[in-house]
Amino acid sequence: KIHRIASIPGDGIGVDITEAAIQVLDTLSKTLGGFEFEFKTFDWSSRAYLERGWYMPPDGLDRLKEYDAIYFGAVGSPDVPDHISLWSLILPIRKALNQYVNIRPTRILPGTISPLTSCATSPTFLDWVIVRENSEGEYSGQGGISHEHSPNAVATEVSIFTQAGIERIMRFAFETARARPRKKLTMVTKSNAQRHGMVLWDKVFFDVAKEYPDVEIDKMLVDAMTVRMVLNPQSMDTIVATNLHADILSDLAAALSGSIGIASSSNLDPTRQNPSMFEPIHGSAPDIAGKGIANPVGAFWSAAEMVRWLGEGEAADGLMKAVENVTGAGIKTKDLGGDRNTREVTDAVCAEIERL
Amino acid sequence: KIHRIASIPGDGIGVDITEAAIQVLDTLSKTLGGFEFEFKTFDWSSRAYLERGWYMPPDGLDRLKEYDAIYFGAVGSPDVPDHISLWSLILPIRKALNQYVNIRPTRILPGTISPLTSCATSPTFLDWVIVRENSEGEYSGQGGISHEHSPNAVATEVSIFTQAGIERIMRFAFETARARPRKKLTMVTKSNAQRHGMVLWDKVFFDVAKEYPDVEIDKMLVDAMTVRMVLNPQSMDTIVATNLHADILSDLAAALSGSIGIASSSNLDPTRQNPSMFEPIHGSAPDIAGKGIANPVGAFWSAAEMVRWLGEGEAADGLMKAVENVTGAGIKTKDLGGDRNTREVTDAVCAEIERL
Ligand SMILES: CC(C)[C@H](C(=O)O)[C@@H](O)C(=O)O
Ligand SMILES: CC(C)[C@H](C(=O)O)[C@@H](O)C(=O)O
Repeated sequence: KIHRIASIPGDGIGVDITEAAIQVLDTLSKTLGGFEFEFKTFDWSSRAYLERGWYMPPDGLDRLKEYDAIYFGAVGSPDVPDHISLWSLILPIRKALNQYVNIRPTRILPGTISPLTSCATSPTFLDWVIVRENSEGEYSGQGGISHEHSPNAVATEVSIFTQAGIERIMRFAFETARARPRKKLTMVTKSNAQRHGMVLWDKVFFDVAKEYPDVEIDKMLVDAMTVRMVLNPQSMDTIVATNLHADILSDLAAALSGSIGIASSSNLDPTRQNPSMFEPIHGSAPDIAGKGIANPVGAFWSAAEMVRWLGEGEAADGLMKAVENVTGAGIKTKDLGGDRNTREVTDAVCAEIERL
Repeated sequence: KIHRIASIPGDGIGVDITEAAIQVLDTLSKTLGGFEFEFKTFDWSSRAYLERGWYMPPDGLDRLKEYDAIYFGAVGSPDVPDHISLWSLILPIRKALNQYVNIRPTRILPGTISPLTSCATSPTFLDWVIVRENSEGEYSGQGGISHEHSPNAVATEVSIFTQAGIERIMRFAFETARARPRKKLTMVTKSNAQRHGMVLWDKVFFDVAKEYPDVEIDKMLVDAMTVRMVLNPQSMDTIVATNLHADILSDLAAALSGSIGIASSSNLDPTRQNPSMFEPIHGSAPDIAGKGIANPVGAFWSAAEMVRWLGEGEAADGLMKAVENVTGAGIKTKDLGGDRNTREVTDAVCAEIERL
């Protein structure tokens, strides 16, 4: 079985960690057999943009549709305003390919230490899956500016929430919660201050909840949610939130699990009519780009999620086991308190895979 | 000198802690002399709303204008949808009285423990002032819903950012940063995904920065900011952010300093044409309301900020010293790991004041 992967390394450490992920995925298929990866690399990056004036070609989104999945490194460069780079690449892909679900799992990997050390009494004290709405809300792109460059300038950002958009993410979140042992879903909102779209979000949540009587639910305000994540992490399991809220909470979750360098982000089209996209949660980190010291664990975790989405569940489990053996053995980059570089961690994971 | 204070205890533990704050403020003026407080209590609460159908009377905002300051407990009740209660009370006050600045200081009080224990090497590892834009942005209240109660329902939340609104909060933030020893201002935004109002916010920040060459600046994305707060708290001092972002970050800040129960929130009209409003950052906490166990420290800290705003700087310092002596002596409520109730902590603070 051949899985065709479009790879977009992008900017900064996106390049380093995509290379590492490809090496690990190749080792995985060679070792386990029964499936293969065929990678096609797209040089859609800020460097290329500065040279030629565009990120994706006009038919870029269509070309991506020919693949089984997309592996994405990172985008963002000090030389291009972020709203240009992101709205030229990652955000249009998420939207055009109907990747309306973004999944962000967080747990404490062996050998890594949560900054919440005083809570770290049990390995399960922090084990969350954040389900992020990935197609609308605060990321609609709508809004504009009037009277620009004048003292009377007024700008708007318009968040759009639709019944259909909320319903589908809620169903996905309830299914996710139901498939986990604790069957518990925490819904996050800011409906006390935002009284239109956020109130609809709450309402749809409680409506859909009726279809899932076996799932325990609760509702949090996004500000209070950060407090609960810090002071009572073990009280939550699956979390569903809007595009912006989940963006913020998932970075916080990664930090609380030890480093933003380990977390994965899966952009899914659950209808499977379009390829889904897998990326580490971290950005392009221009300050450490090209030094070979980026933590590749987030890249491996997202590669594992891609492998699972492609139907190779055992291979995905094997990859995560290899990663956990490596972190557990203390073979870690600096952000996790270790002293290894990207290559050393990658080679160690490959060696573990070969031992599977 | 008589300071006339409008007190709005509101709901839940708002009632308990307002009573505690008044007791402490009375002790303060009696002990130190030279000034007095005259309190007028307004029963604008969810309980009253359920009885009579309104929170504030039609002339409520005008009546508040007759006072030198407003002391606010908390609002929010399980029996009233939050967007009704908040848009009937706290949010209209902030807006109508031009309280466009919200200040939220956070530091580790003596005797309290940050959950980030591994970082707690120096008492100054976490010492922030968050300057929150309090009049526009995500709290504009604009937006609406179409096709309600249908599968085609569409709701919007419209965030409004104005040049004038951003400029004035930036100036306040730079002045705040300049007045602190580190002279460092971190500006938070999400201009990579929100490309209209957030981009204006960035631009005005860098423009205003030119007037403050002695203040060191940096710029963070709100998601990455949560990571930095957890993993590198000592790298920041003064922080400026939008209404929603600062709402989230200030709750996180309170949690990282040990408890949401200690933090204060000052809603300021810097023009002093209207009274400013002082409240603890925590909510009405219906689960512990009326049990007499709420932590009054946030209420005392906000009372101290009120006293300072009213020109009694020495009295404010004295009150904070009394509070710190009490927490330092281990006289704390449960949320801070202690076993004392509201009354015991309050009496202890009063005793410390009398010893000043
Ligand atoms: C790069 C940026 C647009 C993106 C987002 O905000 O979605 C990133 O922070 C993420 O979480 O994937
Ligand atoms: C009660 C609510 C409207 C309020 C806010 O979001 O501003 C609260 O969370 C706060 O931080 O003061």
